Amino acid sequence: MIGTDTKGVFAIAPTPFTEDGSLEVASLGRMTEWYLDREVDGITILGIMGEAQKLRPEESLTVVREVIAAAAGKPIIVGVSAPGMAAMHDLAAASMDAGAAGVMMTPPGTMRTDDQICGWFANAVEAIGPDTPWVLQDHPTVTSVLMSPGVIRRVVTAHDACVMLKHEDWPGLEKISALRDWQAAGDMRPLSILCGNGGLFLDLEMGRGADGAMTGYAFPEMLRRVVDLSAADPEKAADIFDAHLPLLRYEHQSGIGLTVRKQILARRGAIATPALRAPGPKLSPRAAAEIDRLLARVEKRDPGCGMSLRKAS
Amino acid sequence: MIGTDTKGVFAIAPTPFTEDGSLEVASLGRMTEWYLDREVDGITILGIMGEAQKLRPEESLTVVREVIAAAAGKPIIVGVSAPGMAAMHDLAAASMDAGAAGVMMTPPGTMRTDDQICGWFANAVEAIGPDTPWVLQDHPTVTSVLMSPGVIRRVVTAHDACVMLKHEDWPGLEKISALRDWQAAGDMRPLSILCGNGGLFLDLEMGRGADGAMTGYAFPEMLRRVVDLSAADPEKAADIFDAHLPLLRYEHQSGIGLTVRKQILARRGAIATPALRAPGPKLSPRAAAEIDRLLARVEKRDPGCGMSLRKAS
Amino acid sequence: MIGTDTKGVFAIAPTPFTEDGSLEVASLGRMTEWYLDREVDGITILGIMGEAQKLRPEESLTVVREVIAAAAGKPIIVGVSAPGMAAMHDLAAASMDAGAAGVMMTPPGTMRTDDQICGWFANAVEAIGPDTPWVLQDHPTVTSVLMSPGVIRRVVTAHDACVMLKHEDWPGLEKISALRDWQAAGDMRPLSILCGNGGLFLDLEMGRGADGAMTGYAFPEMLRRVVDLSAADPEKAADIFDAHLPLLRYEHQSGIGLTVRKQILARRGAIATPALRAPGPKLSPRAAAEIDRLLARVEKRDPGCGMSLRKAS
Amino acid sequence: MIGTDTKGVFAIAPTPFTEDGSLEVASLGRMTEWYLDREVDGITILGIMGEAQKLRPEESLTVVREVIAAAAGKPIIVGVSAPGMAAMHDLAAASMDAGAAGVMMTPPGTMRTDDQICGWFANAVEAIGPDTPWVLQDHPTVTSVLMSPGVIRRVVTAHDACVMLKHEDWPGLEKISALRDWQAAGDMRPLSILCGNGGLFLDLEMGRGADGAMTGYAFPEMLRRVVDLSAADPEKAADIFDAHLPLLRYEHQSGIGLTVRKQILARRGAIATPALRAPGPKLSPRAAAEIDRLLARVEKRDPGCGMSLRKAS
Repeated sequence: MIGTDTKGVFAIAPTPFTEDGSLEVASLGRMTEWYLDREVDGITILGIMGEAQKLRPEESLTVVREVIAAAAGKPIIVGVSAPGMAAMHDLAAASMDAGAAGVMMTPPGTMRTDDQICGWFANAVEAIGPDTPWVLQDHPTVTSVLMSPGVIRRVVTAHDACVMLKHEDWPGLEKISALRDWQAAGDMRPLSILCGNGGLFLDLEMGRGADGAMTGYAFPEMLRRVVDLSAADPEKAADIFDAHLPLLRYEHQSGIGLTVRKQILARRGAIATPALRAPGPKLSPRAAAEIDRLLARVEKRDPGCGMSLRKAS
Repeated sequence: MIGTDTKGVFAIAPTPFTEDGSLEVASLGRMTEWYLDREVDGITILGIMGEAQKLRPEESLTVVREVIAAAAGKPIIVGVSAPGMAAMHDLAAASMDAGAAGVMMTPPGTMRTDDQICGWFANAVEAIGPDTPWVLQDHPTVTSVLMSPGVIRRVVTAHDACVMLKHEDWPGLEKISALRDWQAAGDMRPLSILCGNGGLFLDLEMGRGADGAMTGYAFPEMLRRVVDLSAADPEKAADIFDAHLPLLRYEHQSGIGLTVRKQILARRGAIATPALRAPGPKLSPRAAAEIDRLLARVEKRDPGCGMSLRKAS
Repeated sequence: MIGTDTKGVFAIAPTPFTEDGSLEVASLGRMTEWYLDREVDGITILGIMGEAQKLRPEESLTVVREVIAAAAGKPIIVGVSAPGMAAMHDLAAASMDAGAAGVMMTPPGTMRTDDQICGWFANAVEAIGPDTPWVLQDHPTVTSVLMSPGVIRRVVTAHDACVMLKHEDWPGLEKISALRDWQAAGDMRPLSILCGNGGLFLDLEMGRGADGAMTGYAFPEMLRRVVDLSAADPEKAADIFDAHLPLLRYEHQSGIGLTVRKQILARRGAIATPALRAPGPKLSPRAAAEIDRLLARVEKRDPGCGMSLRKAS
Repeated sequence: MIGTDTKGVFAIAPTPFTEDGSLEVASLGRMTEWYLDREVDGITILGIMGEAQKLRPEESLTVVREVIAAAAGKPIIVGVSAPGMAAMHDLAAASMDAGAAGVMMTPPGTMRTDDQICGWFANAVEAIGPDTPWVLQDHPTVTSVLMSPGVIRRVVTAHDACVMLKHEDWPGLEKISALRDWQAAGDMRPLSILCGNGGLFLDLEMGRGADGAMTGYAFPEMLRRVVDLSAADPEKAADIFDAHLPLLRYEHQSGIGLTVRKQILARRGAIATPALRAPGPKLSPRAAAEIDRLLARVEKRDPGCGMSLRKAS
């Protein structure tokens, strides 16, 4: 299970597909082990970067079961956001039955006012059940739903089972501080805050009081060390972070970002094939060459970073 | 099958649910017969007003099969729009196997430029297969995808199996004229144009060259007579239309509109229960009273319009 | 001055331009008298339908002065919304100096959360000064800023000089009821509510507790009678309203609506020329014919409605 | 004048204000000289980062005249985008009269389809006159107007005086390549491409065929060297770029970014005061400390980079 005191690094895992767009079931266990070998504290599956909305319900369930089976007891969080509450109920119930540590939810883009957002979460909690631990995903750059710190506090206060914030507002540093200041003043209960947005501000987010990272950058080793070193040696942590930032920025591009990430993960051996399920963009030869160049520069500046890459497919 | 010469009235049917949110299978056949009794030329199911995105895949298929079984050979069109091409393929294939006359598709809100829109339709046609007849739904007020007349022509020209436009741009009268002018000049191939948007401009759309209506206004009898009379007696058609416009306008409200429509359809006996599946708004007592008043005024101005209403639930 | 007890009909006036796009100063006084002849209680200028954002600052001021000079003491409200607070300050100060009854403000589309909206109004009140009476314009279909009833209450409570709500949310009937219920329960202070959105729901808005209309429909005579009759004879009010609804709906189209409205106002003699300043759409011959037809039908159903029209230009 | 062969670095300059929000006229000449001392090839003023939309027309003109007067003949480009064509005409005419090298324009967010965008530019060119050299600004992350490469080609082909693209789509690397490929194939005429987006992808944009940078990063020295070295020594250019990327990323945050940039520019002596005109966010003490830390790290990695900073105000 996850709780309000959960810390560390959760990897956002992609969903592996074959070139013809089928779910690549055989990769799921291996991919899970690959993440565990990089010492992540948990894995989040079926998020936006997991192409969750392109999966059939039975495929989603296969992903949940295979990853949990290979996770050796590490917590697995399952993204369950969907346009209908029925689908959210189904996937949440099946995931918890299968041994998930919790689920992750974010409202659709039509939710705009504070009251609409809080109302949607109330409906969602009714759908997944009041005892299912869940992560509030705050991701306006993709969902276009803007949640002020006050709205997050309202939601967290209303729902005991909300144990974690996946923070990926942009800009978002002041939001972390606002929540932590409220907690320090006794005006808000404890809450784990793990940061997303590809890790683009992870170095600074730790300084604002985040508990760690939950993101899919293709080098979880970097996330691990930055999170671990951030309190004791922030300059060292920043050196490691900065070495990866040029590549991380490239991976964090809207639209093409997941294609880049899967390409790198495939070259690193985490998944067999970099393919996205349709619709999804393809990598141009120029982009592939840019990735090669950025990877080489990461290796030069962070030599210990597991660079035995396979050839680009 | 539907074709480029299809004319008349297609009803957009809702999906009936019980009060607890279950699919009300027993209503499906009766609802279909209710529409046929009102002499519609066909029915479109699983559109936005059919709460399609809240359905489980097996529920969607149940709706398709039950409606087709009760349709006595009248053409049934199935909305298949979905975030992933796999889901679109599955539902299109199963629907056509079950005897559907065609499918309806509209791109997601992230499609913005002309090239993105055309590219999305190319992907979608690949998913449903090049021989499946399909309806291009142009519905910017809900999808926020804006298609210029030129884009519609590009899509129609590229895909032979696109036989119909469900026109619900707003404002949209000039768009109908632009397409019809191109066709008159030999610059665009034939295409059926049926109009949606709740019927809000149906009186004028017929004058611009539309082939009929495809919308869910709870009095298909009105749509039927306006479409039938529009060429021979446009003043008579306008009188009938105007009698319904105050109610139609009320039913066409964003957000609450489907709740209003299902309430009226339940009172007319088309469906057993007006409930929406969660998440969906409820009708306030004040709104229910407004509907009563508007219904009474329709009856006064259009007495022949099938007004044996059940009591509001 | 306007106050929380202001009732009746305020016309939203257009800004008249010549065919070459110059401000038509000579029309301003005549237009003002035209509205007064139709017994409006006040006039609102430089709103969205006044093409305010296309005016030079000195042109805005000319409009303010000419209209006030011709208004014979009737209250004139000036729209002052702008991207920068300096411009808002300038126009508000000059307008109040010139004898305006108050100003009207709405936030830009980037304001999303409740806190952002309330913060923007706090800045705006600082810019216009705490003693300037002002109208809160709630117009999400144009601004895309969604204000829940709770946000409106927060703004109204924070700013004593906010005396009126220009209500044009869509759908918006429940919002009026929510505010009126709070006032009835003593949970919110008095506030005038005048309704916009072209008048599309005016018949029902009065029943929900609105104080009147503030909109630009080209027949203020209809607004006048519907507002006056709504309490004493709602059926009669509805008959008058319904007679105009087909035309009103046509005038309320997004994008082209103001072009339609200015065409009718020019034909009625309110302004000399129907031209919009660039950029603005033109009326097609087909649309002009539709307006003719709709005008003829209004005249048939509401014969007393001032129909001595000039020929279309 | 600027032309299709313009290359190098154009600084996007802020507009300096005093703490009370007045235009700080005295800073304008000094700021201009500060940029020239950093060997920029030109300066762009009154862009989005110049808070242009908050300025009064006469203030805009003051900025234009003061900067041109101090520019020693270097080309000055003036942003003239506005909601109305009258304002665009006025500022463009006055700027060219005052000696500007050209103007910059981008459509409002309501422009969506290819035809709408091309139509807007046609109107805009009519407003500024067909002989005024102009820069097409493609900035979807702020304007939400998406222009495909094909639309840019249409606009460029239709308007001879469009000599430059300010490229700040995101992601945008493939767009540069698409335009350059068309030019190489003879399918599009020459066009200068300078890149914005704070410089976030400048290292790679140069490799795709960009002619340089037009952006406001507070260290134009970095832009200068990266642009100059990118062809001859791309690894050296990337080393310099990477040294600044952590700070550049911080400055490129939405909403708060300009506040950060003005803070750094004030500390570097480019402007006297970091204040934004209202409405604009303030820097928190935590953010100020983060900037200090990032500045110190830039100095460590790029020691030659003009780091004699003033104390934070």
